[in-house]
Amino acid sequence: MQPEHFSAVPLDKSYRLLNHGPTVLVSANHGGISNVMAAAWACVLDFGQSPKVTVVLDKATYTRELLMASGEFALQLPIKAMVSLTVGVGSDSAKEVPDKLTKHGVQLFTAPGSSVPLVAGCVGWLICKWIPEPHNEQTYDLFIGEVVAAWADERVFREGRWYFESAPDELRTIHHVAGGKFYATGEPIQG
Amino acid sequence: MQPEHFSAVPLDKSYRLLNHGPTVLVSANHGGISNVMAAAWACVLDFGQSPKVTVVLDKATYTRELLMASGEFALQLPIKAMVSLTVGVGSDSAKEVPDKLTKHGVQLFTAPGSSVPLVAGCVGWLICKWIPEPHNEQTYDLFIGEVVAAWADERVFREGRWYFESAPDELRTIHHVAGGKFYATGEPIQG
Repeated sequence: MQPEHFSAVPLDKSYRLLNHGPTVLVSANHGGISNVMAAAWACVLDFGQSPKVTVVLDKATYTRELLMASGEFALQLPIKAMVSLTVGVGSDSAKEVPDKLTKHGVQLFTAPGSSVPLVAGCVGWLICKWIPEPHNEQTYDLFIGEVVAAWADERVFREGRWYFESAPDELRTIHHVAGGKFYATGEPIQG
Repeated sequence: MQPEHFSAVPLDKSYRLLNHGPTVLVSANHGGISNVMAAAWACVLDFGQSPKVTVVLDKATYTRELLMASGEFALQLPIKAMVSLTVGVGSDSAKEVPDKLTKHGVQLFTAPGSSVPLVAGCVGWLICKWIPEPHNEQTYDLFIGEVVAAWADERVFREGRWYFESAPDELRTIHHVAGGKFYATGEPIQG
């Protein structure tokens, strides 16, 4: 079941979900098995009508295997209230902790027209089709995806804009530094 | 002349300057000509003793030409007080506005042992050696660099950690969304 406030984002505005550099959760499913990991190294690669993203996925991760087997994945933006979940799914590997999603309270759902697992409680979701680039993947663990659908929590992102300053404080996105220390997205500044 | 508080960052901690996803200024010099542009699409690619970064540089930018001619560049982190400068150097091209650095009040300096131009007033600097990847550059405008030296303003980053919460507020880094709207780096959260 989709969360409340789950609202479609036009493709040409989807880069704005990621442009401010938040830490993301990466999810994928293959053969009925879903996994979720955390990644601070995700970035916009292109905008417009064929938006693209990059994300670095270590060879040891199970999510990378599911992504490569299924050809699709999602990046999504956890919020302040999900810091423990984010650290948990970023620390435990499903290879050693098979019930890691349950252990860390991850609830999954799917968007209309897609079977990619999405994490409930996030405020932005980018559903991506993998663009295979074997050299990047082998040499740098660098993956490229084309965004094929995007969604946001309309309380905090609507009409192509973030509204952190007027939304509930716990909906702010988070930016990992190291060792479980994050900074929340802060005050708006108009240049 | 180097700015005050300019302090070396060990290579294995340098990724922490960029890990929280701030918008950066990209600088390069060739043949005595320096340029600076803004980029929100910069990201850590690797850490450890050979840290790497990615940055997306449009084919139309002059900084890209200087980078490719010289083989080196820098990423640096502007602060709240530099929002106008950041929007300015991100909007004007040196190809049309030859005096864009002067126009936007950019002051350059160099670090010991390097000739890469660095922007004064920033709080973190990553000096990078270009790793040529022609397919990525042509297809995606995606550049990879190896960090060969890193520096920070010790008032806000020292011993491998950010101290935004105890430093002067204007030293916070900035995260661009779109159209000159930024969010400052916000409150710390320990996961």
